[in-house]
Amino acid sequence: MNKNVHTFIGCDADYDEADAVVFGAPFDGTTSFRPGTRFGPAAIRGESFGIETYSPYCDRDLTDVKVFDGGDLDLPFGNTERVLKMIEDYAAGLIADKKRFIMLGGEHLVTLGAMRAAVRAYPDLHVIHFDAHTDLRDEYIGEELSHSTVMKQVWKLTGDGRIHQFGIRSGEKYEFEFAKEHTKLHKFDLDGFSGAVEELRGKPVYFSLDLDVLDPSAFPGTGTPEAGGVSFKELMGAILMLNRLNIVACDINELSPHYDQSGISTAAACKITREIILQIL
Amino acid sequence: MNKNVHTFIGCDADYDEADAVVFGAPFDGTTSFRPGTRFGPAAIRGESFGIETYSPYCDRDLTDVKVFDGGDLDLPFGNTERVLKMIEDYAAGLIADKKRFIMLGGEHLVTLGAMRAAVRAYPDLHVIHFDAHTDLRDEYIGEELSHSTVMKQVWKLTGDGRIHQFGIRSGEKYEFEFAKEHTKLHKFDLDGFSGAVEELRGKPVYFSLDLDVLDPSAFPGTGTPEAGGVSFKELMGAILMLNRLNIVACDINELSPHYDQSGISTAAACKITREIILQIL
Amino acid sequence: MNKNVHTFIGCDADYDEADAVVFGAPFDGTTSFRPGTRFGPAAIRGESFGIETYSPYCDRDLTDVKVFDGGDLDLPFGNTERVLKMIEDYAAGLIADKKRFIMLGGEHLVTLGAMRAAVRAYPDLHVIHFDAHTDLRDEYIGEELSHSTVMKQVWKLTGDGRIHQFGIRSGEKYEFEFAKEHTKLHKFDLDGFSGAVEELRGKPVYFSLDLDVLDPSAFPGTGTPEAGGVSFKELMGAILMLNRLNIVACDINELSPHYDQSGISTAAACKITREIILQIL
Amino acid sequence: MNKNVHTFIGCDADYDEADAVVFGAPFDGTTSFRPGTRFGPAAIRGESFGIETYSPYCDRDLTDVKVFDGGDLDLPFGNTERVLKMIEDYAAGLIADKKRFIMLGGEHLVTLGAMRAAVRAYPDLHVIHFDAHTDLRDEYIGEELSHSTVMKQVWKLTGDGRIHQFGIRSGEKYEFEFAKEHTKLHKFDLDGFSGAVEELRGKPVYFSLDLDVLDPSAFPGTGTPEAGGVSFKELMGAILMLNRLNIVACDINELSPHYDQSGISTAAACKITREIILQIL
Amino acid sequence: MNKNVHTFIGCDADYDEADAVVFGAPFDGTTSFRPGTRFGPAAIRGESFGIETYSPYCDRDLTDVKVFDGGDLDLPFGNTERVLKMIEDYAAGLIADKKRFIMLGGEHLVTLGAMRAAVRAYPDLHVIHFDAHTDLRDEYIGEELSHSTVMKQVWKLTGDGRIHQFGIRSGEKYEFEFAKEHTKLHKFDLDGFSGAVEELRGKPVYFSLDLDVLDPSAFPGTGTPEAGGVSFKELMGAILMLNRLNIVACDINELSPHYDQSGISTAAACKITREIILQIL
Amino acid sequence: MNKNVHTFIGCDADYDEADAVVFGAPFDGTTSFRPGTRFGPAAIRGESFGIETYSPYCDRDLTDVKVFDGGDLDLPFGNTERVLKMIEDYAAGLIADKKRFIMLGGEHLVTLGAMRAAVRAYPDLHVIHFDAHTDLRDEYIGEELSHSTVMKQVWKLTGDGRIHQFGIRSGEKYEFEFAKEHTKLHKFDLDGFSGAVEELRGKPVYFSLDLDVLDPSAFPGTGTPEAGGVSFKELMGAILMLNRLNIVACDINELSPHYDQSGISTAAACKITREIILQIL
Repeated sequence: MNKNVHTFIGCDADYDEADAVVFGAPFDGTTSFRPGTRFGPAAIRGESFGIETYSPYCDRDLTDVKVFDGGDLDLPFGNTERVLKMIEDYAAGLIADKKRFIMLGGEHLVTLGAMRAAVRAYPDLHVIHFDAHTDLRDEYIGEELSHSTVMKQVWKLTGDGRIHQFGIRSGEKYEFEFAKEHTKLHKFDLDGFSGAVEELRGKPVYFSLDLDVLDPSAFPGTGTPEAGGVSFKELMGAILMLNRLNIVACDINELSPHYDQSGISTAAACKITREIILQIL
Repeated sequence: MNKNVHTFIGCDADYDEADAVVFGAPFDGTTSFRPGTRFGPAAIRGESFGIETYSPYCDRDLTDVKVFDGGDLDLPFGNTERVLKMIEDYAAGLIADKKRFIMLGGEHLVTLGAMRAAVRAYPDLHVIHFDAHTDLRDEYIGEELSHSTVMKQVWKLTGDGRIHQFGIRSGEKYEFEFAKEHTKLHKFDLDGFSGAVEELRGKPVYFSLDLDVLDPSAFPGTGTPEAGGVSFKELMGAILMLNRLNIVACDINELSPHYDQSGISTAAACKITREIILQIL
Repeated sequence: MNKNVHTFIGCDADYDEADAVVFGAPFDGTTSFRPGTRFGPAAIRGESFGIETYSPYCDRDLTDVKVFDGGDLDLPFGNTERVLKMIEDYAAGLIADKKRFIMLGGEHLVTLGAMRAAVRAYPDLHVIHFDAHTDLRDEYIGEELSHSTVMKQVWKLTGDGRIHQFGIRSGEKYEFEFAKEHTKLHKFDLDGFSGAVEELRGKPVYFSLDLDVLDPSAFPGTGTPEAGGVSFKELMGAILMLNRLNIVACDINELSPHYDQSGISTAAACKITREIILQIL
Repeated sequence: MNKNVHTFIGCDADYDEADAVVFGAPFDGTTSFRPGTRFGPAAIRGESFGIETYSPYCDRDLTDVKVFDGGDLDLPFGNTERVLKMIEDYAAGLIADKKRFIMLGGEHLVTLGAMRAAVRAYPDLHVIHFDAHTDLRDEYIGEELSHSTVMKQVWKLTGDGRIHQFGIRSGEKYEFEFAKEHTKLHKFDLDGFSGAVEELRGKPVYFSLDLDVLDPSAFPGTGTPEAGGVSFKELMGAILMLNRLNIVACDINELSPHYDQSGISTAAACKITREIILQIL
Repeated sequence: MNKNVHTFIGCDADYDEADAVVFGAPFDGTTSFRPGTRFGPAAIRGESFGIETYSPYCDRDLTDVKVFDGGDLDLPFGNTERVLKMIEDYAAGLIADKKRFIMLGGEHLVTLGAMRAAVRAYPDLHVIHFDAHTDLRDEYIGEELSHSTVMKQVWKLTGDGRIHQFGIRSGEKYEFEFAKEHTKLHKFDLDGFSGAVEELRGKPVYFSLDLDVLDPSAFPGTGTPEAGGVSFKELMGAILMLNRLNIVACDINELSPHYDQSGISTAAACKITREIILQIL
Repeated sequence: MNKNVHTFIGCDADYDEADAVVFGAPFDGTTSFRPGTRFGPAAIRGESFGIETYSPYCDRDLTDVKVFDGGDLDLPFGNTERVLKMIEDYAAGLIADKKRFIMLGGEHLVTLGAMRAAVRAYPDLHVIHFDAHTDLRDEYIGEELSHSTVMKQVWKLTGDGRIHQFGIRSGEKYEFEFAKEHTKLHKFDLDGFSGAVEELRGKPVYFSLDLDVLDPSAFPGTGTPEAGGVSFKELMGAILMLNRLNIVACDINELSPHYDQSGISTAAACKITREIILQIL
């Protein structure tokens, strides 16, 4: 293989033969606090060679599956709607080609682009959302498109009862009140996740993982660290249930690698990416 | 509001109407290892805008309470006694005006200044002390006033049986032996805290929180990180009991923000400050 | 003064009495490489207390002039045109009130907002532009509004021969060719600046300082460090000539403080801000 | 004592009177990812003065035992076999002089040098191995001597059933399969350790502690951080059982201090070193 | 082009059509102080997209030349001689194919591998060596192959009077004395370089650039920073003369990117790499 | 030599035979901005092994002179006067024993302790003071003993015309006015230093080097970085004149190593220490 080709470790299938596609959406244009998630996908690819292709958790190996790494989308700066459209178009193409996908953010708003394509293809789509934040604001300093409004926007696509939120520990009061009516929000931890898995068996599911659901001790490299999160082992426990579901697409977002000089955040993101790939294929 | 006014988030009441006062004591003059806690209060205020005013833990909001942020005391460098006197005078003024207060350190010795005022006002005062260290030394390189002697100095004010220590995991042997006779010291974790809460109900209590009681994984930005501490969730669990007590004053100290490039320590301190305010009012 | 009011050091005049206004434009939405200049104005204010109000360079003191610090504009995330409009409106108000201003960026595109107001007020406005980069691109990944296109956009406002560029050492080939026809571009250093000062005497001038004109050794904390820049002393030499000109407005931009753990970039920006204020008043 | 003598805190016995010897093996020549463990032993000594000599965990004090700190071996760069020989010779000398030893790495391959001496002296030696990684590769880019092959090399010395591995969560598939046949490997955590302690009572044991067995949240300063590790408290719980065993030698390795600007990794290593010394003497 | 192909910016020619080849030699196995140059080539490639393909210094563009980026050699860890042999073989292949090359280190010893191939092909080869250090030791802790002995080893290949050293400001006394007899050593700066260029016109020349010839202010990210070096502008001035010479091969080494959180060292290395390519083609 | 003895490189003479003594004064108790100079002396010793004993600047070697390294004084925290007394007593002992000394700070106030001893022994003592700051304040937040008042305090010992200040570029206006009457202050650079050397030939001189006289680009690791300083080469040029003077004592202060992750500040301080030792002996 060309020495200069850098994919996520083990994801070197050709597009045509691939069952799934990894791609990057390096956008952080609406980040309200500390930006830098644009460097997330490149960091995950670059550091993925520090982990193994084999998972002792599920006894499977990335060499056993066929994944194409599509690289990063060439997203512009300063034009949010155009960015979302580019993501939506790319995701729609993957779905048309019968590829599951793992989108690497970027900030959480990238989910909206992918969801627009996914909801069109799967009208009965459910969303599993792991996050520290509700992301249910109506707007942020006057903007409706924001990483803090993304789940409200997604809700406009899916309607009530389709968004299953876990680990949530921050938001404005009205967001939590909205959630009581319209989403299934689980505060603080992942308790109740196995129940949700049972409930969603057989349905198409989009899994959106904001890595700040992890406690900042395990994942300091993010824009808005929020103390009191889940441990890596708790997150891994939930991920290891994903194979019971029909995950048609997913994203892993909010790694801002420059805020973690030690590199442990990127290393954690790499391992999570590997496990998710192995679960959904 | 003036664009340049920076208070702790949501603490924008006028002094006269306020029920409580937040103020900073940016002193680190006796720090024995890594200094820098002088930057703690400014960091907590500056980063407080990265959290919300609403707490999903207790379902209350900082907009529901009246707190004045008095800014930082203008403390000198190199004159420990003068610093303690300035803190004592400020604290005494607050108590005279019937304000509860939340002092943001600085190093732990600042507690002594505030305690001198508090003990005078509340002769039957009890102290709840969360810390990694006993802080019961007699002196440090010949100095009786030190962040490592502060609880011994406080004991001289309160006498036996009034200091309730939790999370302690470091000290010299004679300090632990002293504690057996004179304080109520709980090693390693917060076990027994709910019992202490029951015991102290109705009595005036000073709560002194050395943030290094947290495990360094959750709170690396401190001068003397001590492995084996409590998790953020354990600390939060204890804080959520504080509303059962009559906390007349408290302090939150030993954040040294420059030692944590990721900012998770300051973010944790902000959240703890919010929760303590909401508990004691 | 209220303990919690943080202005740039010495800039504590009331708006009405002020001859000049400092304000922040914390925007980095089109930054193409490393974001973070949104934290620039707050860092400059916060660290300004590490310098003195007195300048031994020009033997003047900030206590001798009247400057109001207007704080930071509350700019949204993800909507470039709206940001520019807010900056333009604020700048227009200052000009209407006969205030000179010093805008603290943020990224370099903020200049466009201020220039829109300034050109309207001063149709014969000239621009002095210190920068490592030409900033004369037509677009960046399809976007015409970018920190790499800002001087092309400014040129559309001013026309040929009005933009005097110094220190330029990076750009695409067509940008340098454009400059030959339309701007007065001086490559690599500030040679020729005293000539430009003579030429512009008496005319209204907007001074736009991209701090990356400095060599990265003196100013590492920026998004796109470009080796081979001018030294701090060379830059200071040029700034000390500004009092010969009629600087009606200026900006100081592209400090990204988180990329410089040592803090020397912010400290340099503080000193430059002080000297510019003292020169233009 | 000479002001310039730096030993691990409390380890200031003369060689002749000492029951145990601490020494450094600052080698990182086969590190496959991020090097820098060569700075481990110096960092542990230098920062050891930030902890106390007294352990509240086991109520013993380093002042109660006699340990000599032999400093760092003067190891060459670029010659792996020569390094291993120097370690082996030094270790053999200690064993001949009836000293137990605590070797501070350096990378994990240093264990091989010490084990060569130890196995010769104790033919029935067992190994307790705490690590995130199996370290059972056959070779790494063609080299048989590597920090990722060290336990395979040790196995060649000890034979089947002598290596007790705990906390393992990363490796290639064939390594885990090898372990099923030839070592006693416990995945993910330290469960089963007390059983192993019972089994090994009375036998000579070498304890090899790769600090990356800790979760990266507690120990970010290492070359290959591997999420999902044990907590500091879990590790401490296991260490506090070591006094039931006959630990003839041990090593503590893989601290790479420059990757942790906060210093919590070094602080944790210091505390672990203290506790291990107090357990094995 | 494949989204995941990462070459040095603008170096995307096919091997067959290329006039020159860039490749990485990510070796730091003999580094005596702070390791990490193994990450140099990847950092240079990754950050090269922060600079432009066009050079305003020589008015040429990387799009005007044909360069192939061969990626990084897959070098082992812990076996110095094998590493040198792999470099030698690769370099010999390039020379046989009539390609000039630019090798990106890695530490300075990699030069020896390339020089073995180059001297064989060009028996009358001269070496231009920019460095802070003499690199003329006989051995380092007993090892003859070291980044501190590399020029002594090169001298064994070339003989007297062929090595032209500039910028040297550190070494043992006997190294400077050796240089008086056997090399042409210029202390402290690049004075005399234009004379050397005149002297070497028409002869085959190997250019070895240890980036620590730069002052640490301009290039902090290196293993052994040595104050008092040349400025970036001085180095650039010398590089701009290289087109007068017949540079058959060159290397750029000793970037250790993790020691420079600001990234200015890597950015400088990228720009230097661009300029050298444009000069030698 | 004992493996654990850490002296400044090459300073391993016995006290009795030594012509000069290096010692550390790790005090930063009055630092007004960023503390941490307490770690300066240990950093200088620890990193001194990254430089050579030989100086190509003056063609001398530390192996040619006899220097004792006395380690660090065991200074208390929080008691400024006691610290100064300990320094004074130690310095007085050295002078009584006919040892010249090089004191490694710590902050600049440590000079006062040493000067008290030196002035008593040499009533006609002159002071050469290199610094960014005048250090001529009357007090700082009410304290007369401060690193910003130290030269005013020294002036009280020496009287008018004895303090020769160079490189000064920051202070309050009244400090510069005081200097016009009472000291010989040279603004911004070291111009005029050779004249001062001629004037002081034969007289006893104390040389006090605040390393922040260097430009922050060359020396970022200090508490109060002040842009516009001298280059390392300019400083070295001045130091190389010191051998014409009778330097009876000197100090090198204000290195705060934790603020420079790259380590170039400490490396520069090591080299300066070596050169000063070689000049004054």
